[in-house]
Amino acid sequence: MRYAIGVEYDGHAFHGWQRLSRHGETGAPSVQEALEDALSKIASHPVTTVCSGRTDAGVHAQCQVVHFDSDAPRAPRAWVLGTTTLLPPQVGVLWCQPVADGFNARFDARARHYRYRILNRQVRPALHRQYLSWELRPLDADAMHRAAQALLGEQDFSAFRTVQCQAKHPRRDLQRIRVRRDGDEVIVEVQANAFLHHMVRNIVGSLLEVGAGAQPEAWIGELLAGRDRNLAGPTAPAAGLVFLGPLYPPEWNLPAAVTLR
Amino acid sequence: MRYAIGVEYDGHAFHGWQRLSRHGETGAPSVQEALEDALSKIASHPVTTVCSGRTDAGVHAQCQVVHFDSDAPRAPRAWVLGTTTLLPPQVGVLWCQPVADGFNARFDARARHYRYRILNRQVRPALHRQYLSWELRPLDADAMHRAAQALLGEQDFSAFRTVQCQAKHPRRDLQRIRVRRDGDEVIVEVQANAFLHHMVRNIVGSLLEVGAGAQPEAWIGELLAGRDRNLAGPTAPAAGLVFLGPLYPPEWNLPAAVTLR
Repeated sequence: MRYAIGVEYDGHAFHGWQRLSRHGETGAPSVQEALEDALSKIASHPVTTVCSGRTDAGVHAQCQVVHFDSDAPRAPRAWVLGTTTLLPPQVGVLWCQPVADGFNARFDARARHYRYRILNRQVRPALHRQYLSWELRPLDADAMHRAAQALLGEQDFSAFRTVQCQAKHPRRDLQRIRVRRDGDEVIVEVQANAFLHHMVRNIVGSLLEVGAGAQPEAWIGELLAGRDRNLAGPTAPAAGLVFLGPLYPPEWNLPAAVTLR
Repeated sequence: MRYAIGVEYDGHAFHGWQRLSRHGETGAPSVQEALEDALSKIASHPVTTVCSGRTDAGVHAQCQVVHFDSDAPRAPRAWVLGTTTLLPPQVGVLWCQPVADGFNARFDARARHYRYRILNRQVRPALHRQYLSWELRPLDADAMHRAAQALLGEQDFSAFRTVQCQAKHPRRDLQRIRVRRDGDEVIVEVQANAFLHHMVRNIVGSLLEVGAGAQPEAWIGELLAGRDRNLAGPTAPAAGLVFLGPLYPPEWNLPAAVTLR
Protein backbone atom coordinates (compact mmCIF):
# COMPACT_ATOMS: atom_id res chain seq x y z
CA MET A 1 0.00 0.00 0.00
CA ARG A 2 1.30 3.45 -0.93
CA TYR A 3 0.63 6.48 1.30
CA ALA A 4 1.06 10.22 0.82
CA ILE A 5 1.67 12.32 3.91
CA GLY A 6 1.93 16.06 4.51
CA VAL A 7 4.85 17.03 6.72
CA GLU A 8 5.53 20.33 8.49
CA TYR A 9 9.00 21.14 9.76
CA ASP A 10 11.16 23.87 11.20
CA GLY A 11 14.40 23.51 9.25
CA HIS A 12 16.50 25.29 11.83
CA ALA A 13 17.85 22.22 13.61
CA PHE A 14 18.32 20.15 10.45
CA HIS A 15 20.97 19.62 7.85
CA GLY A 16 18.19 19.80 5.25
CA TRP A 17 15.71 17.29 3.88
CA GLN A 18 18.00 14.67 2.46
CA ARG A 19 19.36 11.69 4.39
CA LEU A 20 23.14 11.59 4.12
CA SER A 21 25.46 8.63 4.45
CA ARG A 22 27.11 10.66 7.20
CA HIS A 23 26.00 13.86 8.95
CA GLY A 24 27.04 17.14 7.36
CA GLU A 25 29.51 19.61 8.79
CA THR A 26 27.05 20.78 11.40
CA GLY A 27 26.50 17.29 12.78
CA ALA A 28 22.78 18.00 12.41
CA PRO A 29 20.47 15.19 11.27
CA SER A 30 18.27 15.38 8.16
CA VAL A 31 14.49 15.64 8.20
CA GLN A 32 14.28 12.51 6.03
CA GLU A 33 16.25 10.51 8.58
CA ALA A 34 14.04 11.65 11.48
CA LEU A 35 10.88 10.91 9.49
CA GLU A 36 11.99 7.51 8.18
CA ASP A 37 13.04 6.44 11.67
CA ALA A 38 9.63 7.36 13.08
CA LEU A 39 7.65 5.81 10.19
CA SER A 40 9.71 2.62 10.44
CA LYS A 41 8.80 2.26 14.12
CA ILE A 42 5.10 2.68 13.38
CA ALA A 43 5.32 0.26 10.42
CA SER A 44 7.55 -2.24 12.27
CA HIS A 45 9.64 -2.50 9.10
CA PRO A 46 12.15 -0.18 7.40
CA VAL A 47 10.39 2.62 5.51
CA THR A 48 12.00 4.75 2.81
CA THR A 49 10.46 8.02 1.65
CA VAL A 50 10.39 10.14 -1.51
CA CYS A 51 9.64 13.86 -1.10
CA SER A 52 8.16 16.41 -3.46
CA GLY A 53 11.03 18.86 -3.14
CA ARG A 54 14.28 18.67 -1.19
CA THR A 55 14.92 21.59 1.09
CA ASP A 56 18.33 22.90 2.16
CA ALA A 57 19.75 23.25 5.65
CA GLY A 58 17.70 25.73 7.65
CA VAL A 59 14.79 25.95 5.19
CA HIS A 60 11.32 25.33 6.64
CA ALA A 61 8.35 23.44 5.15
CA GLN A 62 4.68 24.19 5.69
CA CYS A 63 3.56 21.15 3.73
CA GLN A 64 6.23 18.90 2.34
CA VAL A 65 4.54 15.94 0.61
CA VAL A 66 6.15 12.53 0.92
CA HIS A 67 5.21 9.07 -0.30
CA PHE A 68 6.15 5.71 1.16
CA ASP A 69 5.06 2.08 0.94
CA SER A 70 3.91 -0.16 3.75
CA ASP A 71 1.77 -3.27 4.08
CA ALA A 72 1.44 -2.77 7.84
CA PRO A 73 -2.29 -2.57 8.66
CA ARG A 74 -2.37 0.99 10.03
CA ALA A 75 -5.13 3.58 9.73
CA PRO A 76 -4.17 7.03 8.36
CA ARG A 77 -4.77 8.36 11.89
CA ALA A 78 -2.01 6.08 13.25
CA TRP A 79 0.44 7.25 10.61
CA VAL A 80 -0.33 10.86 11.52
CA LEU A 81 -0.54 10.77 15.32
CA GLY A 82 1.74 7.82 16.04
CA THR A 83 4.53 9.08 13.80
CA THR A 84 4.29 12.63 15.15
CA THR A 85 4.65 11.32 18.70
CA LEU A 86 7.96 9.75 17.71
CA LEU A 87 9.27 12.81 15.88
CA PRO A 88 11.31 15.66 17.38
CA PRO A 89 9.29 18.84 18.13
CA GLN A 90 10.53 20.47 14.91
CA VAL A 91 8.62 17.96 12.71
CA GLY A 92 5.00 16.87 12.50
CA VAL A 93 2.83 14.79 10.15
CA LEU A 94 -0.27 16.81 9.19
CA TRP A 95 -2.27 14.25 7.21
CA CYS A 96 -2.01 10.83 5.58
CA GLN A 97 -3.86 9.45 2.61
CA PRO A 98 -3.68 6.11 0.80
CA VAL A 99 -2.78 6.73 -2.86
CA ALA A 100 -2.62 4.68 -6.05
CA ASP A 101 0.60 2.69 -6.46
CA GLY A 102 1.58 4.86 -9.41
CA PHE A 103 1.76 8.04 -7.35
CA ASN A 104 5.18 9.61 -6.97
CA ALA A 105 5.51 12.63 -4.67
CA ARG A 106 8.37 13.99 -6.72
CA PHE A 107 7.45 13.25 -10.32
CA ASP A 108 3.72 13.90 -10.08
CA ALA A 109 4.09 17.38 -8.60
CA ARG A 110 3.21 19.93 -11.30
CA ALA A 111 4.39 22.91 -9.28
CA ARG A 112 6.07 23.94 -6.03
CA HIS A 113 5.62 27.17 -4.17
CA TYR A 114 7.77 29.01 -1.69
CA ARG A 115 7.46 32.07 0.52
CA TYR A 116 10.36 34.25 1.60
CA ARG A 117 9.92 36.76 4.46
CA ILE A 118 12.23 39.74 4.96
CA LEU A 119 11.95 41.98 8.01
CA ASN A 120 12.73 45.45 6.69
CA ARG A 121 13.64 47.78 9.54
CA GLN A 122 16.64 49.25 11.36
CA VAL A 123 16.75 46.62 14.09
CA ARG A 124 17.23 42.86 13.65
CA PRO A 125 14.26 40.63 14.58
CA ALA A 126 14.01 39.21 18.10
CA LEU A 127 10.47 37.81 17.82
CA HIS A 128 9.92 35.36 14.92
CA ARG A 129 13.64 35.63 14.07
CA GLN A 130 13.61 31.87 13.34
CA TYR A 131 11.37 32.58 10.32
CA LEU A 132 12.68 35.88 8.98
CA SER A 133 15.66 37.30 7.21
CA TRP A 134 16.54 40.93 7.83
CA GLU A 135 17.31 43.88 5.57
CA LEU A 136 17.99 47.26 7.08
CA ARG A 137 18.07 49.25 3.82
CA PRO A 138 14.54 50.53 3.05
CA LEU A 139 13.06 48.32 0.34
CA ASP A 140 10.73 49.33 -2.48
CA ALA A 141 8.55 46.22 -2.67
CA ASP A 142 6.69 47.49 -5.76
CA ALA A 143 9.95 47.91 -7.66
CA MET A 144 10.97 44.39 -6.60
CA HIS A 145 7.63 43.06 -7.83
CA ARG A 146 7.91 44.75 -11.21
CA ALA A 147 11.52 43.61 -11.65
CA ALA A 148 10.61 40.02 -10.75
CA GLN A 149 8.08 39.73 -13.56
CA ALA A 150 11.00 39.37 -16.02
CA LEU A 151 11.50 35.87 -14.58
CA LEU A 152 8.10 34.54 -15.67
CA GLY A 153 7.84 31.69 -18.14
CA GLU A 154 10.08 28.82 -19.16
CA GLN A 155 13.61 30.17 -18.97
CA ASP A 156 17.22 29.20 -18.37
CA PHE A 157 17.86 30.04 -14.69
CA SER A 158 21.65 29.50 -14.72
CA ALA A 159 22.11 33.01 -13.25
CA PHE A 160 20.28 31.89 -10.08
CA ARG A 161 21.71 28.36 -9.70
CA THR A 162 24.53 27.28 -7.38
CA VAL A 163 27.57 25.45 -8.68
CA GLN A 164 26.48 22.50 -6.47
CA CYS A 165 23.19 22.14 -8.37
CA GLN A 166 22.81 18.60 -9.71
CA ALA A 167 19.83 19.22 -12.02
CA LYS A 168 20.24 17.88 -15.55
CA HIS A 169 19.36 21.20 -17.16
CA PRO A 170 18.81 24.78 -15.98
CA ARG A 171 15.39 25.40 -17.57
CA ARG A 172 12.43 25.92 -15.26
CA ASP A 173 8.93 27.26 -15.81
CA LEU A 174 8.36 30.10 -13.38
CA GLN A 175 4.59 30.40 -13.13
CA ARG A 176 4.07 33.21 -10.65
CA ILE A 177 6.15 35.61 -8.58
CA ARG A 178 4.73 38.24 -6.29
CA VAL A 179 6.47 40.72 -4.00
CA ARG A 180 4.45 42.72 -1.50
CA ARG A 181 4.90 44.71 1.67
CA ASP A 182 3.00 43.82 4.86
CA GLY A 183 3.93 46.40 7.51
CA ASP A 184 7.62 45.96 8.35
CA GLU A 185 7.86 42.84 6.21
CA VAL A 186 8.51 42.33 2.52
CA ILE A 187 7.17 38.99 1.34
CA VAL A 188 8.18 37.17 -1.85
CA GLU A 189 5.99 34.31 -3.08
CA VAL A 190 7.07 32.27 -6.05
CA GLN A 191 5.71 29.25 -7.88
CA ALA A 192 7.43 27.20 -10.58
CA ASN A 193 7.17 23.70 -12.01
CA ALA A 194 10.38 22.99 -10.10
CA PHE A 195 13.38 24.89 -8.72
CA LEU A 196 17.13 24.66 -9.14
CA HIS A 197 19.39 24.47 -6.07
CA HIS A 198 19.25 27.81 -4.16
CA MET A 199 17.12 29.31 -6.93
CA VAL A 200 14.61 31.06 -4.65
CA ARG A 201 17.28 32.41 -2.30
CA ASN A 202 19.40 33.62 -5.24
CA ILE A 203 16.41 35.36 -6.84
CA VAL A 204 15.58 37.01 -3.51
CA GLY A 205 19.20 38.07 -3.03
CA SER A 206 19.11 39.88 -6.39
CA LEU A 207 15.65 41.37 -5.83
CA LEU A 208 16.97 42.89 -2.58
CA GLU A 209 19.52 44.86 -4.61
CA VAL A 210 16.71 46.26 -6.75
CA GLY A 211 14.52 46.96 -3.71
CA ALA A 212 17.34 48.86 -2.00
CA GLY A 213 17.95 50.94 -5.13
CA ALA A 214 21.43 49.53 -5.72
CA GLN A 215 20.36 48.14 -9.10
CA PRO A 216 17.68 49.21 -11.61
CA GLU A 217 14.53 47.16 -12.15
CA ALA A 218 15.77 45.98 -15.55
CA TRP A 219 18.76 44.31 -13.88
CA ILE A 220 16.82 41.14 -13.00
CA GLY A 221 15.96 40.49 -16.65
CA GLU A 222 19.56 41.22 -17.65
CA LEU A 223 20.90 38.77 -15.07
CA LEU A 224 18.55 36.08 -16.34
CA ALA A 225 19.58 36.69 -19.95
CA GLY A 226 23.29 36.72 -19.00
CA ARG A 227 23.08 33.25 -17.33
CA ASP A 228 26.12 34.10 -15.18
CA ARG A 229 25.75 33.30 -11.47
CA ASN A 230 28.73 35.52 -10.67
CA LEU A 231 26.87 38.69 -11.63
CA ALA A 232 23.75 38.11 -9.49
CA GLY A 233 23.19 39.18 -5.87
CA PRO A 234 24.25 37.08 -2.87
CA THR A 235 22.24 34.04 -1.73
CA ALA A 236 19.62 35.22 0.79
CA PRO A 237 19.74 33.44 4.21
CA ALA A 238 17.84 30.17 4.70
CA ALA A 239 15.80 31.27 7.73
CA GLY A 240 13.41 33.46 5.72
CA LEU A 241 12.42 30.65 3.36
CA VAL A 242 9.50 28.27 3.74
CA PHE A 243 8.50 25.60 1.23
CA LEU A 244 4.73 26.06 1.16
CA GLY A 245 4.29 22.80 -0.70
CA PRO A 246 3.85 21.07 -4.05
CA LEU A 247 0.73 21.03 -6.22
CA TYR A 248 -0.68 17.86 -7.81
CA PRO A 249 -3.37 17.25 -10.44
CA PRO A 250 -6.86 16.81 -8.92
CA GLU A 251 -7.09 13.12 -9.95
CA TRP A 252 -4.83 12.09 -7.06
CA ASN A 253 -7.50 13.28 -4.59
CA LEU A 254 -5.00 14.83 -2.22
CA PRO A 255 -5.96 17.58 0.27
CA ALA A 256 -6.98 20.92 -1.28
CA ALA A 257 -3.81 22.67 -0.03
CA VAL A 258 -1.67 20.52 -2.36
CA THR A 259 -4.06 20.21 -5.31
CA LEU A 260 -3.94 22.31 -8.49
CA ARG A 261 -7.10 24.28 -9.11
CA MET B 1 17.72 63.07 30.85
CA ARG B 2 14.90 60.53 30.78
CA TYR B 3 14.39 58.21 27.82
CA ALA B 4 11.59 55.90 26.75
CA ILE B 5 12.50 52.87 24.64
CA GLY B 6 10.45 50.21 22.88
CA VAL B 7 11.79 46.70 23.42
CA GLU B 8 10.92 43.50 21.53
CA TYR B 9 11.75 40.13 23.04
CA ASP B 10 11.24 36.41 22.65
CA GLY B 11 10.47 35.29 26.20
CA HIS B 12 11.43 31.68 25.58
CA ALA B 13 14.96 31.84 26.95
CA PHE B 14 14.11 34.14 29.88
CA HIS B 15 12.93 33.79 33.41
CA GLY B 16 10.56 36.68 32.70
CA TRP B 17 10.93 40.46 32.73
CA GLN B 18 11.97 41.09 36.28
CA ARG B 19 15.55 41.11 37.53
CA LEU B 20 15.92 38.72 40.46
CA SER B 21 18.46 38.73 43.24
CA ARG B 22 19.28 35.21 42.09
CA HIS B 23 18.25 33.32 38.96
CA GLY B 24 15.02 31.34 39.12
CA GLU B 25 14.70 27.58 39.07
CA THR B 26 15.47 27.45 35.37
CA GLY B 27 18.78 29.27 35.79
CA ALA B 28 17.57 31.56 32.99
CA PRO B 29 18.32 35.29 33.15
CA SER B 30 15.67 38.01 33.13
CA VAL B 31 15.03 40.39 30.25
CA GLN B 32 15.53 43.34 32.60
CA GLU B 33 18.99 42.09 33.55
CA ALA B 34 20.05 41.65 29.91
CA LEU B 35 18.69 45.07 28.99
CA GLU B 36 20.18 46.94 31.97
CA ASP B 37 23.57 45.34 31.34
CA ALA B 38 23.55 46.50 27.73
CA LEU B 39 22.22 50.01 28.47
CA SER B 40 24.83 50.42 31.24
CA LYS B 41 27.62 49.64 28.78
CA ILE B 42 26.32 52.22 26.29
CA ALA B 43 25.83 54.79 29.08
CA SER B 44 29.15 53.98 30.79
CA HIS B 45 27.28 54.11 34.11
CA PRO B 46 24.80 51.77 35.84
CA VAL B 47 21.32 52.09 34.34
CA THR B 48 18.13 50.91 36.01
CA THR B 49 14.88 50.50 34.10
CA VAL B 50 11.14 50.65 34.80
CA CYS B 51 8.85 48.75 32.43
CA SER B 52 5.21 49.25 31.49
CA GLY B 53 4.16 45.72 32.35
CA ARG B 54 6.12 42.80 33.77
CA THR B 55 5.92 39.62 31.75
CA ASP B 56 6.23 36.08 33.08
CA ALA B 57 8.73 33.41 32.13
CA GLY B 58 8.25 32.43 28.49
CA VAL B 59 5.93 35.33 27.59
CA HIS B 60 6.95 37.41 24.56
CA ALA B 61 6.77 41.18 24.02
CA GLN B 62 6.18 42.96 20.73
CA CYS B 63 6.66 46.40 22.27
CA GLN B 64 7.51 46.55 25.94
CA VAL B 65 8.02 50.21 26.92
CA VAL B 66 10.76 51.02 29.39
CA HIS B 67 12.09 54.26 30.85
CA PHE B 68 15.55 55.00 32.23
CA ASP B 69 17.68 58.01 33.12
CA SER B 70 21.10 58.91 31.76
CA ASP B 71 23.13 62.07 31.35
CA ALA B 72 25.49 60.34 28.93
CA PRO B 73 25.46 62.36 25.69
CA ARG B 74 24.05 59.69 23.37
CA ALA B 75 21.75 60.15 20.39
CA PRO B 76 18.56 58.01 20.33
CA ARG B 77 20.15 56.11 17.43
CA ALA B 78 23.02 55.04 19.70
CA TRP B 79 20.63 53.82 22.39
CA VAL B 80 18.77 51.78 19.76
CA LEU B 81 21.55 50.33 17.64
CA GLY B 82 24.36 50.25 20.20
CA THR B 83 22.22 48.60 22.86
CA THR B 84 20.80 46.04 20.44
CA THR B 85 24.32 45.05 19.38
CA LEU B 86 25.08 44.20 23.00
CA LEU B 87 21.84 42.26 23.60
CA PRO B 88 21.30 38.53 23.06
CA PRO B 89 19.44 37.67 19.80
CA GLN B 90 16.16 37.26 21.73
CA VAL B 91 15.99 40.99 22.58
CA GLY B 92 16.13 44.17 20.51
CA VAL B 93 15.53 47.89 21.09
CA LEU B 94 13.08 49.20 18.47
CA TRP B 95 13.10 52.93 19.16
CA CYS B 96 14.25 55.50 21.73
CA GLN B 97 12.77 58.87 22.53
CA PRO B 98 13.72 61.55 25.09
CA VAL B 99 10.75 62.15 27.41
CA ALA B 100 9.84 64.67 30.12
CA ASP B 101 11.28 63.85 33.54
CA GLY B 102 7.79 63.20 34.88
CA PHE B 103 7.18 60.26 32.53
CA ASN B 104 6.85 56.86 34.15
CA ALA B 105 6.54 53.83 31.85
CA ARG B 106 4.51 51.98 34.44
CA PHE B 107 2.24 54.60 35.99
CA ASP B 108 1.49 56.62 32.86
CA ALA B 109 0.29 53.64 30.84
CA ARG B 110 -3.50 53.88 30.53
CA ALA B 111 -3.89 50.42 29.02
CA ARG B 112 -2.02 47.28 28.07
CA HIS B 113 -2.89 44.84 25.34
CA TYR B 114 -2.04 41.22 24.79
CA ARG B 115 -2.52 38.65 22.07
CA TYR B 116 -2.83 34.90 22.66
CA ARG B 117 -2.48 32.46 19.72
CA ILE B 118 -3.84 28.91 19.84
CA LEU B 119 -3.16 26.43 17.05
CA ASN B 120 -6.35 24.40 16.80
CA ARG B 121 -5.73 21.15 14.94
CA GLN B 122 -5.02 17.46 15.49
CA VAL B 123 -1.24 17.78 15.30
CA ARG B 124 1.03 19.89 17.53
CA PRO B 125 2.82 22.82 15.84
CA ALA B 126 6.31 22.32 14.41
CA LEU B 127 6.58 25.66 12.58
CA HIS B 128 6.06 28.75 14.79
CA ARG B 129 5.74 26.45 17.82
CA GLN B 130 7.72 29.04 19.83
CA TYR B 131 4.77 31.44 19.51
CA LEU B 132 1.74 29.16 19.73
CA SER B 133 -0.12 27.08 22.20
CA TRP B 134 -2.00 24.04 20.94
CA GLU B 135 -5.52 22.73 21.41
CA LEU B 136 -6.62 19.59 19.65
CA ARG B 137 -10.32 19.76 20.56
CA PRO B 138 -12.18 21.70 17.83
CA LEU B 139 -12.87 25.21 19.16
CA ASP B 140 -15.91 27.40 18.52
CA ALA B 141 -14.23 30.83 18.38
CA ASP B 142 -17.57 32.65 18.11
CA ALA B 143 -18.83 31.01 21.31
CA MET B 144 -15.56 31.98 23.03
CA HIS B 145 -15.98 35.56 21.82
CA ARG B 146 -19.55 35.82 23.08
CA ALA B 147 -18.65 34.28 26.44
CA ALA B 148 -15.69 36.64 26.86
CA GLN B 149 -17.87 39.75 26.64
CA ALA B 150 -19.05 39.05 30.23
CA LEU B 151 -15.58 40.19 31.35
CA LEU B 152 -15.91 43.75 30.04
CA GLY B 153 -15.84 46.71 32.39
CA GLU B 154 -14.36 47.34 35.82
CA GLN B 155 -14.67 44.08 37.70
CA ASP B 156 -13.13 41.96 40.43
CA PHE B 157 -10.93 39.44 38.57
CA SER B 158 -10.10 37.22 41.57
CA ALA B 159 -11.32 34.18 39.62
CA PHE B 160 -8.50 34.69 37.09
CA ARG B 161 -5.68 35.67 39.46
CA THR B 162 -2.87 33.41 40.73
CA VAL B 163 -2.19 33.02 44.44
CA GLN B 164 1.25 34.57 43.76
CA CYS B 165 -0.33 37.83 42.56
CA GLN B 166 1.05 40.80 44.50
CA ALA B 167 -1.44 43.42 43.30
CA LYS B 168 -3.07 45.48 46.05
CA HIS B 169 -6.58 44.80 44.84
CA PRO B 170 -8.20 42.51 42.25
CA ARG B 171 -10.21 45.13 40.33
CA ARG B 172 -9.26 45.81 36.72
CA ASP B 173 -11.01 47.61 33.89
CA LEU B 174 -11.21 45.23 30.94
CA GLN B 175 -11.73 47.48 27.93
CA ARG B 176 -11.86 45.08 25.01
CA ILE B 177 -11.70 41.34 24.38
CA ARG B 178 -11.99 39.74 20.99
CA VAL B 179 -11.77 36.08 19.98
CA ARG B 180 -11.54 35.17 16.30
CA ARG B 181 -10.52 32.30 14.08
CA ASP B 182 -7.85 32.74 11.41
CA GLY B 183 -7.52 29.43 9.55
CA ASP B 184 -6.14 26.83 11.98
CA GLU B 185 -5.57 29.47 14.65
CA VAL B 186 -7.84 30.91 17.31
CA ILE B 187 -6.61 34.34 18.41
CA VAL B 188 -7.59 36.12 21.62
CA GLU B 189 -6.85 39.85 21.92
CA VAL B 190 -7.50 41.62 25.18
CA GLN B 191 -6.99 45.14 26.48
CA ALA B 192 -7.35 46.38 30.07
CA ASN B 193 -6.06 49.28 32.14
CA ALA B 194 -3.78 46.69 33.79
CA PHE B 195 -3.67 42.95 34.40
CA LEU B 196 -3.33 40.73 37.44
CA HIS B 197 -0.69 37.99 37.54
CA HIS B 198 -1.56 35.25 34.99
CA MET B 199 -4.87 37.01 34.25
CA VAL B 200 -4.71 36.66 30.44
CA ARG B 201 -3.56 33.04 30.57
CA ASN B 202 -6.24 32.16 33.13
CA ILE B 203 -8.96 33.82 31.05
CA VAL B 204 -7.74 31.95 27.96
CA GLY B 205 -7.66 28.67 29.89
CA SER B 206 -11.32 29.10 30.80
CA LEU B 207 -12.36 30.30 27.33
CA LEU B 208 -10.85 27.10 25.91
CA GLU B 209 -13.33 25.07 27.98
CA VAL B 210 -16.19 27.06 26.45
CA GLY B 211 -14.71 26.80 22.95
CA ALA B 212 -14.40 23.02 23.27
CA GLY B 213 -17.99 22.73 24.46
CA ALA B 214 -17.04 21.46 27.93
CA GLN B 215 -18.71 24.49 29.54
CA PRO B 216 -21.59 26.74 28.46
CA GLU B 217 -21.01 30.33 27.34
CA ALA B 218 -22.53 31.68 30.57
CA TRP B 219 -19.82 29.93 32.58
CA ILE B 220 -17.28 32.77 32.09
CA GLY B 221 -19.62 35.32 33.68
CA GLU B 222 -20.38 32.88 36.50
CA LEU B 223 -16.68 32.31 37.19
CA LEU B 224 -16.10 36.07 37.33
CA ALA B 225 -19.00 36.58 39.73
CA GLY B 226 -17.85 33.65 41.92
CA ARG B 227 -14.34 35.13 42.39
CA ASP B 228 -12.96 31.65 43.07
CA ARG B 229 -9.77 30.77 41.18
CA ASN B 230 -10.28 27.08 41.96
CA LEU B 231 -13.35 26.86 39.73
CA ALA B 232 -11.80 28.38 36.58
CA GLY B 233 -9.95 26.56 33.80
CA PRO B 234 -6.21 25.79 33.87
CA THR B 235 -3.60 28.47 33.14
CA ALA B 236 -2.89 28.44 29.40
CA PRO B 237 0.80 27.94 28.45
CA ALA B 238 3.12 30.97 28.23
CA ALA B 239 4.35 30.37 24.67
CA GLY B 240 1.08 31.54 23.05
CA LEU B 241 1.14 34.91 24.79
CA VAL B 242 2.63 38.14 23.49
CA PHE B 243 2.49 41.48 25.27
CA LEU B 244 1.64 43.78 22.35
CA GLY B 245 2.41 46.82 24.46
CA PRO B 246 1.09 49.63 26.66
CA LEU B 247 -0.87 52.69 25.54
CA TYR B 248 -0.08 56.23 26.75
CA PRO B 249 -1.93 59.54 26.45
CA PRO B 250 -0.99 61.50 23.28
CA GLU B 251 0.72 64.30 25.26
CA TRP B 252 3.81 62.15 25.83
CA ASN B 253 4.47 62.16 22.07
CA LEU B 254 5.46 58.52 21.97
CA PRO B 255 5.32 56.44 18.74
CA ALA B 256 1.81 55.81 17.35
CA ALA B 257 1.94 52.10 18.24
CA VAL B 258 1.97 52.93 21.98
CA THR B 259 -0.28 56.01 21.94
CA LEU B 260 -3.99 56.04 22.79
CA ARG B 261 -6.18 57.24 19.95
